[in-house]
Amino acid sequence: MFRDPVQSLEDPSFQPTAAAMRPLRVGMIGIGTVGAGTFRVLARNQALIAGRAGRGIEVVVVAARNLARAVSVVGKDVALTNDPMQVATHPDVDVLVEAAGGTGPARDWVLAAIRAGKHVVTANKALLAEHGNEIFAAARQHGVAVAYEGAVAVSIPIVKALREGLTANRIEWVAGIINGTTNFILSKMRDEGVGFAEALAQAQALGYAEADPTFDIEGIDAAHKITLLAANAFGMPLRFADAQVEGITALQGLDVACAEQLGFRIKLLGVARRRQDGDADGVELRVQLALVPATHLLAHVNGSMNGIMVKGDASGVTMYYGAGAGSEQTASAVIADLVDVARLHGTHAAQRVPHLGFHANAISDDLPVLPRAAVRTLHYLRVPVHQAQQIEAVGAWLAAQHVPVAQVQLACAQHVPAGGTPQVLVLTDAVAQATVDLAVHALGAHPAVAGPVVSLRVEMLEG
Amino acid sequence: MFRDPVQSLEDPSFQPTAAAMRPLRVGMIGIGTVGAGTFRVLARNQALIAGRAGRGIEVVVVAARNLARAVSVVGKDVALTNDPMQVATHPDVDVLVEAAGGTGPARDWVLAAIRAGKHVVTANKALLAEHGNEIFAAARQHGVAVAYEGAVAVSIPIVKALREGLTANRIEWVAGIINGTTNFILSKMRDEGVGFAEALAQAQALGYAEADPTFDIEGIDAAHKITLLAANAFGMPLRFADAQVEGITALQGLDVACAEQLGFRIKLLGVARRRQDGDADGVELRVQLALVPATHLLAHVNGSMNGIMVKGDASGVTMYYGAGAGSEQTASAVIADLVDVARLHGTHAAQRVPHLGFHANAISDDLPVLPRAAVRTLHYLRVPVHQAQQIEAVGAWLAAQHVPVAQVQLACAQHVPAGGTPQVLVLTDAVAQATVDLAVHALGAHPAVAGPVVSLRVEMLEG
Repeated sequence: MFRDPVQSLEDPSFQPTAAAMRPLRVGMIGIGTVGAGTFRVLARNQALIAGRAGRGIEVVVVAARNLARAVSVVGKDVALTNDPMQVATHPDVDVLVEAAGGTGPARDWVLAAIRAGKHVVTANKALLAEHGNEIFAAARQHGVAVAYEGAVAVSIPIVKALREGLTANRIEWVAGIINGTTNFILSKMRDEGVGFAEALAQAQALGYAEADPTFDIEGIDAAHKITLLAANAFGMPLRFADAQVEGITALQGLDVACAEQLGFRIKLLGVARRRQDGDADGVELRVQLALVPATHLLAHVNGSMNGIMVKGDASGVTMYYGAGAGSEQTASAVIADLVDVARLHGTHAAQRVPHLGFHANAISDDLPVLPRAAVRTLHYLRVPVHQAQQIEAVGAWLAAQHVPVAQVQLACAQHVPAGGTPQVLVLTDAVAQATVDLAVHALGAHPAVAGPVVSLRVEMLEG
Repeated sequence: MFRDPVQSLEDPSFQPTAAAMRPLRVGMIGIGTVGAGTFRVLARNQALIAGRAGRGIEVVVVAARNLARAVSVVGKDVALTNDPMQVATHPDVDVLVEAAGGTGPARDWVLAAIRAGKHVVTANKALLAEHGNEIFAAARQHGVAVAYEGAVAVSIPIVKALREGLTANRIEWVAGIINGTTNFILSKMRDEGVGFAEALAQAQALGYAEADPTFDIEGIDAAHKITLLAANAFGMPLRFADAQVEGITALQGLDVACAEQLGFRIKLLGVARRRQDGDADGVELRVQLALVPATHLLAHVNGSMNGIMVKGDASGVTMYYGAGAGSEQTASAVIADLVDVARLHGTHAAQRVPHLGFHANAISDDLPVLPRAAVRTLHYLRVPVHQAQQIEAVGAWLAAQHVPVAQVQLACAQHVPAGGTPQVLVLTDAVAQATVDLAVHALGAHPAVAGPVVSLRVEMLEG
């Protein structure tokens, strides 16, 4: 039933070409976690997907390193090759699904496919964050779609929400938990009171972290994603190189506990915020540990889940929540992109939605990423002192450094056992990072201070 | 800059018609809350929206009852009329925005616009839930889009998520808080311990409830919305008449408190669940008060906010959160629909996304809404008894009625003062509504039972 031309395109004046009515033909590079998941879901939900797309979606050729393993996934009806470039330029392919990962070769395959007039679907955030400007320029020139819903928070249609769902809005900020591995580790640290190293080991044992977890725990993966979201939110090119990126490896269990005492939870947030005030005109683009009020919805995004908030001037705050990783979860996004392409039915509307949400002449090359020094948030400071009564003086020391202090208290006995170094906990009002950095530096040299001062941002997001 | 043809549609082979490159011309019926908000946001974010849409979006004619007030909103450059039908069929209009509300006349205007070849955008859930099957059939016949993102949870792009973002998935269920008025009232009842009548009065005083709140508090508005979501989730026509609809007017403060004691919060949920099991093959379609675990994200959707969860077989659970009402919040959705239409650039892809997410030949007329008796959930029962020790017998009475009991306890002294009627609280395992209804009836006649037995559904949603 679904192989037939779709009866519902029944306007008599509409004459789609034969090519537009036959199944959409997919070439796939890579048949690992993402590729195999995509193949499996396409097969399982074939009729249902065709009913939504208006025509079938068929994988016709796959490039894989290990052909024997590939056969075990895709069977014998799909052509197989060792040569990704052959898939990228294959005459029978309408859309390339790049599911190989990495940046160098993937860039070449994607550009070759675009030049051959193929649409491209990929979940490769590193590729797009680093080479997206070049790739999207080529795609515009050749009139093809490059879709990447799976590149950010996989199953959550957040790219679609920004590019299509919230188009009425001047976006004020996007902030989210967009890396499942670090969120899993942070949730473990809080729930079980374990340190970073043990939480990481658990994450690795359970498959939530890779053997080399650098990309995740150093914040790089989240930075790729917030770079993509910022471009779609604000109409700017991809500026991954300018993002401020901090990981979670230095986080101490003591700060997790002290944040809790103050009514906060610590999350790794990707933040993109449009600033247009007396101090700055540009975009904050950063991945950093941050304190979030325990009552805030983002504080309840736990384990390996992702959650993203968007503030628009008309919509107010909206939030999007779901799995941040996984084979079929990513496939859900990859196939949604394929259905979008299939629904174009060969009309030129391949460029219906511009790659970064704005048409090229509306993307501002002049919108700068603000330097770290200019980022302005509330702050949490933990100041170890020799004697508990020195808490009285800490406020004055900080005021002398132009840090606006909102609250000062001692870490409670539950967190600092009797005889331990007293810890003064400070919450500030909004203050530029430059001011905080100078104050932390000065305090570190103060004779009353008993150790390194810890500072973390506090995000008081609406919603 | 944005009035020019969009340079980024730069593929030399693409020759859009002149009509497709000029601003999209909007005719609007109604300039109240939704209409005025849409006009205001379109004006404020004009350049930004054009940068996203690829061309301008201009309101060219407005129908209003009070022309003097309309002039004060839209100024003198927009044509005004008292005759909605004139706007619906106006030769200069590409898209009709129906922002008048109601069902009878709105149906006529929308059908007239469709027959005149206009696209239609509306946030009118009552109109679509009740007349959508007829309207979408006409729209298919005439090859026009009928877009309605604003009809469900206004600023949250949940219709887009279901129709486009989750197309890979066999949707298992959709469940959500989709009426802001009732959620505000329920939040008040819980947070402040007030009764329904006082919470409603507060909601009215603050503008969260209308003078005649029937549509909201009787669950009808939520039923309109879950009807739309179910059709998009499962590929079925709109079956509003078959939905089970319960309101919140009978909810007692005692049950809010007892639910809390058991670790739950009470929410008004719209639920659409695909059932395919030994007992039933069809769709549960219902709006009902339900207990949700206090740790579940939906329990943290408070005040007038909306939150919707969707379970797909590949995506797993995703959730969408945001404002459920408001002038500019609704405008955000209406304008997103207009941008979708503008981005078609006059290609026939007006039918790019089928109205209910599935093409007509993939919509099953045979998928029934299951009757109330077949709905299967866990249940909460509150059984008033003459003597506290009768708690021992309640489990046996229920077992005799084939109700699987999971937990039994007495309402604590905080909720039932000394000397008051003891209240036995029961949580059941999953059980058909028919069984519960019979048991509640039988228990009501039991000599040991001291008053009406209360039963509420418990939704143990994943996520």
